[in-house]
Amino acid sequence: MFRSDMRRTSCAVFMFSFMLLAGNSAKAQTPLPLIPLPATAVEGTGSLSVDHGLQVVLEGYTEPRLERARARFLDTLSREIGTSGVPPQTVAGGKLIIKTAGPSAPVQQLGEDESYHLEITTTGAHLTAPTPLGVLHGLQTFLQLVHSTPEGYAVTGVTIDDKPRFPWRGLMIDTGRHFMPLDVLRQNLDGMEAVKMNVFHWHLSEDQGFRVESKTFPLLQEKGSDGLYYTQDQVRGILEYAHDRGIRVVPEFDMPGHATAWFVGYPNLASGSGPYKIERHWGIFDPAMDPTRESTYQFLDQLLGEMTALFPDAYFHIGGDECNGKEWDANPRIKQYMQTHHIKDDAGLQAYFTSRVQQLVTKRHKITVGWDELLQPDTPRDVVIQSWRGQDSLAEAARRGYRGLLSAGYYIDLNQSAADHYAVDPLVNGKAKLSPAEEANILGGEATMWTEYATPENITGKIWPRTAAIAERLWSAQSVKDADSMYRRIDTLSQNFAYYGLPYQGVREQMLRRLNSYSDPKALQILASVVQPPRDYAREELRAYDAFYPLNRLVDTVPPESNKAREFNELAARIAAGKAAPEDWRKARQWLALWRDNDAALQPSLPKSTLTAELAPLSHNLSQAATIGLLALDALQNNAPVSAEMQKQQLAELKELEKPQAILLNRIVPGVEVLVSAAKAQ
Amino acid sequence: MFRSDMRRTSCAVFMFSFMLLAGNSAKAQTPLPLIPLPATAVEGTGSLSVDHGLQVVLEGYTEPRLERARARFLDTLSREIGTSGVPPQTVAGGKLIIKTAGPSAPVQQLGEDESYHLEITTTGAHLTAPTPLGVLHGLQTFLQLVHSTPEGYAVTGVTIDDKPRFPWRGLMIDTGRHFMPLDVLRQNLDGMEAVKMNVFHWHLSEDQGFRVESKTFPLLQEKGSDGLYYTQDQVRGILEYAHDRGIRVVPEFDMPGHATAWFVGYPNLASGSGPYKIERHWGIFDPAMDPTRESTYQFLDQLLGEMTALFPDAYFHIGGDECNGKEWDANPRIKQYMQTHHIKDDAGLQAYFTSRVQQLVTKRHKITVGWDELLQPDTPRDVVIQSWRGQDSLAEAARRGYRGLLSAGYYIDLNQSAADHYAVDPLVNGKAKLSPAEEANILGGEATMWTEYATPENITGKIWPRTAAIAERLWSAQSVKDADSMYRRIDTLSQNFAYYGLPYQGVREQMLRRLNSYSDPKALQILASVVQPPRDYAREELRAYDAFYPLNRLVDTVPPESNKAREFNELAARIAAGKAAPEDWRKARQWLALWRDNDAALQPSLPKSTLTAELAPLSHNLSQAATIGLLALDALQNNAPVSAEMQKQQLAELKELEKPQAILLNRIVPGVEVLVSAAKAQ
Repeated sequence: MFRSDMRRTSCAVFMFSFMLLAGNSAKAQTPLPLIPLPATAVEGTGSLSVDHGLQVVLEGYTEPRLERARARFLDTLSREIGTSGVPPQTVAGGKLIIKTAGPSAPVQQLGEDESYHLEITTTGAHLTAPTPLGVLHGLQTFLQLVHSTPEGYAVTGVTIDDKPRFPWRGLMIDTGRHFMPLDVLRQNLDGMEAVKMNVFHWHLSEDQGFRVESKTFPLLQEKGSDGLYYTQDQVRGILEYAHDRGIRVVPEFDMPGHATAWFVGYPNLASGSGPYKIERHWGIFDPAMDPTRESTYQFLDQLLGEMTALFPDAYFHIGGDECNGKEWDANPRIKQYMQTHHIKDDAGLQAYFTSRVQQLVTKRHKITVGWDELLQPDTPRDVVIQSWRGQDSLAEAARRGYRGLLSAGYYIDLNQSAADHYAVDPLVNGKAKLSPAEEANILGGEATMWTEYATPENITGKIWPRTAAIAERLWSAQSVKDADSMYRRIDTLSQNFAYYGLPYQGVREQMLRRLNSYSDPKALQILASVVQPPRDYAREELRAYDAFYPLNRLVDTVPPESNKAREFNELAARIAAGKAAPEDWRKARQWLALWRDNDAALQPSLPKSTLTAELAPLSHNLSQAATIGLLALDALQNNAPVSAEMQKQQLAELKELEKPQAILLNRIVPGVEVLVSAAKAQ
Repeated sequence: MFRSDMRRTSCAVFMFSFMLLAGNSAKAQTPLPLIPLPATAVEGTGSLSVDHGLQVVLEGYTEPRLERARARFLDTLSREIGTSGVPPQTVAGGKLIIKTAGPSAPVQQLGEDESYHLEITTTGAHLTAPTPLGVLHGLQTFLQLVHSTPEGYAVTGVTIDDKPRFPWRGLMIDTGRHFMPLDVLRQNLDGMEAVKMNVFHWHLSEDQGFRVESKTFPLLQEKGSDGLYYTQDQVRGILEYAHDRGIRVVPEFDMPGHATAWFVGYPNLASGSGPYKIERHWGIFDPAMDPTRESTYQFLDQLLGEMTALFPDAYFHIGGDECNGKEWDANPRIKQYMQTHHIKDDAGLQAYFTSRVQQLVTKRHKITVGWDELLQPDTPRDVVIQSWRGQDSLAEAARRGYRGLLSAGYYIDLNQSAADHYAVDPLVNGKAKLSPAEEANILGGEATMWTEYATPENITGKIWPRTAAIAERLWSAQSVKDADSMYRRIDTLSQNFAYYGLPYQGVREQMLRRLNSYSDPKALQILASVVQPPRDYAREELRAYDAFYPLNRLVDTVPPESNKAREFNELAARIAAGKAAPEDWRKARQWLALWRDNDAALQPSLPKSTLTAELAPLSHNLSQAATIGLLALDALQNNAPVSAEMQKQQLAELKELEKPQAILLNRIVPGVEVLVSAAKAQ
């Protein structure tokens, strides 16, 4: 979780992304609504109608997974164009011929060929690929090309040759802090498939929960999960579901820290004296496995035997993050052991632990993955390092010959913007350039969704659509970096996500409706549309949360990034720069008036529910900021000078309005500040 | 389906309901947001907080179904208050003690005790019931009482004694015309549970599809279903799901007509010469079983043996509707048979067929249910008649000693209002009064959802929330008939339905978003909010539909009843009657201005998609009607006389605007007509 260091990192990321954005805002438009953008695409003329059905023919190599992919494709297509429930027609309108050269590996491997060739003309479509993996990707490209026309639904005529830039394009979901039911995992695997991600990193154990059934050590789940865990049959179900979508599943069992939940059932694993309880708070805690006892490794040997058999992937994640060593320091027996074995500090002790566990993983013919902490002077060369420290740290690992994954910059739980994440490239770093061989050590990256503040209800709407920006960064060419284009294409994808099995927009509306039981629903929607949870780790400083705290407030409902506020802030920037069209002026005035007047509609109902009572100052702030914005707009439009005193006062007031209320930021303030600052002062 | 006669019936129903509505509009308010209203409820003081968890304790008799009901209840409660994902707390806030006296019948029986007693105080809650059926109902009552307060979520303090008025409270879903996937059936069973309905009538065979797997005659599903059928395992899954919710499942196999799909695989069953194809149109068709051959009964004997074993309910529905006899008339062998056996007409032949099939049902120890047509001079007394002809016809059956169910007036596919359905009472009929013994023959009723125009996507939003009005009619006292109160309570239920597993509001928003790919989403929403599909059978006269016609237009998206238009029309009535508050005037003006201006925002984008192009005249009409409405409002507010000529012209124009466009009615027109007519003419 890397709380303290991450603070600095994410700040740097933010600055960096801001520069990139600015540099790219005038780039060429991308006409195809595809995300990720393909390696090459040549638009043809015309399009293929799908209004009278589509016959999908499998040629060449085939397997049940391809049959299921076809059925799923047709099902998604029918939802996309609204023909669910229409029986299959015997005479189909068009034909999509899929030709697969041969099988992919039985257990999906890192670096397998995922390429495909897709050709769509007015008379039909051809999808060819070396393996089913390419077919799966090509089908998603096809679905993204479907659109409505005056003549009905059609697919753009195009010839696409496509393959990924990085072989490891992952999404990590933390099911330890908040357990996520199977349907949530399946929805997110659907989302990953839509944007061609290929690794689901399943964070399965935490201080707050051990989430998978062990038959060898059943007290792990029985005492460490509140009954909220995945049975081995359910795990196999998810593995199949992922395999069907061209997605590898890498399990993570986090150790030696972040493991309190293990110790509830097996206190002898720990370095303290126990007894242990499931942790109910968020943060970094003292409990840690005892690296000095052979019984620890005997336990882990058996458990890893069981878990490496359950999860077929060649890679196995052992965590390794944020062990604070306090339990070790407090245990005289452990201090003694360190002295006897010439282990000079806690980092050294963790290195010893890691090397022992890594041997157990290797014994099961698996490759170890772990967080940055795993990288020590004598770490074995086949360990894969997942980097949170940043691109430089990743580059250093690569230079030392380790393969690595970037996650710094892809912490999607931190409420950064899609553009921020998009600007982070695994191969772009501030320092020295890597050689091609060293670059090849960088396998890709992973979006990481930690779940202190995510529930089964809202997690999918936090992960998507922003993760699509990361998916594009990892799939498409390095030169693809126009954030405006990315936002436009993400917007199209968002519209369609419901048909791909991700109903998070509907769920968000339901959550708003629940908050709304007494309020004017429109007024609450208007407020919700321009506020955002604070970035990074600000939330935990604003309120004391624990595992029992219900996440049912407005802050838990709104997306991490307000599209409306982003649009307004862009509008304000154009107005301030003297580049605004009349439509921009009209919109800015209309929106500001709406926001100014919204408070009066919303305020009376807010006190009726605990959930909305805290929103009163936030709603009031919005009205205040909009009022100032309208004054600035008047001044700018009339080219009327404003007193410097007044301007200073307004900017001071806006600084106040920028502060979070009800754990939410009023995100129109930056745009209003731009407007106020642009007025001529005298 | 009773197309032609139904037309007249539903017209009568409409008039009738109008009078009831008028008579009840000034009735007392019902404070508890329960639907159906309980037999007796006494409000206590205060309420029980559920913010810190709720411990649910099962006492007395228990069974796995009750454990599952408890888990489901807690799950729904957590969605209702937004605590999904919060781990169970060891120290719960309040306690709900459930005490069940004993088991219900292993196969749920008609007329079992469904009563319950629920007592909620500030310190806890007690639910007691003779059987699990009452417990299931009581838990739903509890869920409906949860609401948000300034102190958090709470349940109203109350003492309720409740039991149903009728023992048969059904919902029929036609899965023959459009196949409905399992999740759709499950959602609707969840809806039924929420409003205490207890019979799912599963219409399983039609001209357009035979929807259940037969192992004896597999060509029924293999050739008669387009691959869209329920396996027997899936059927058992639905039976369990229903049983868990206190719902019986009565299967319907419709014969001798409405059976074309059977004949695709087994043409010898039919009276014509074949070959047969799955019917792709809607309507009444000629194919009918051959009642004159023993092989027909041998086939049916085997099939009924299989199906009566699969479906455990004591009742078995054999359809019997709308056999037009044309295939019989055209077959000389059948004509000859009728002559030989002194069968004077087709009705007589069908009566002979029915009596033979009824014997086969009886042989399997089941009771036959069928549509009105089954009632003939010598129909056996234990046959249950499901009446579409109306309340008088039902009363006549009851007087003759037959048990019956009312469905006339509950045809929820016909886009009537909740108030229309609500006004129909199985025991209120225009003619002679029934004795108490005769009244006891009337078991209840069924809402019937035929699916020519319903798809898996939109069916749940057509069934709900209107069916809750029918559920109340069948559960609550006859004297409960205030439509305003019903609408208010339905509205609350609708808000909560998403948490009960019916996400139809979210789905509707998704469907609108799909229509919206190029349009101003708000403008299309505004148009959608005031239009309605035409009532009764008007739709099939406006466009040539068949089974392949995609149901993805605005008419397929909007609910059968526009709440917004209903509110406006009520507003207009108050204004016209001189009983409007200043707020009414303000609202009317604001809404009319919004509708007047909406066309300009919407019109430019409509031609960009085939799906929206047809909406241009409808959108224009709305603007026109609103403009006239605003003029009338001005005249009324200023008490200014209007020229009689102008008034006449406006009313003529409104008559035009009332006509359907894009299969949709502009439903604000009635209110505008009321305003125009109220202005002083000179």
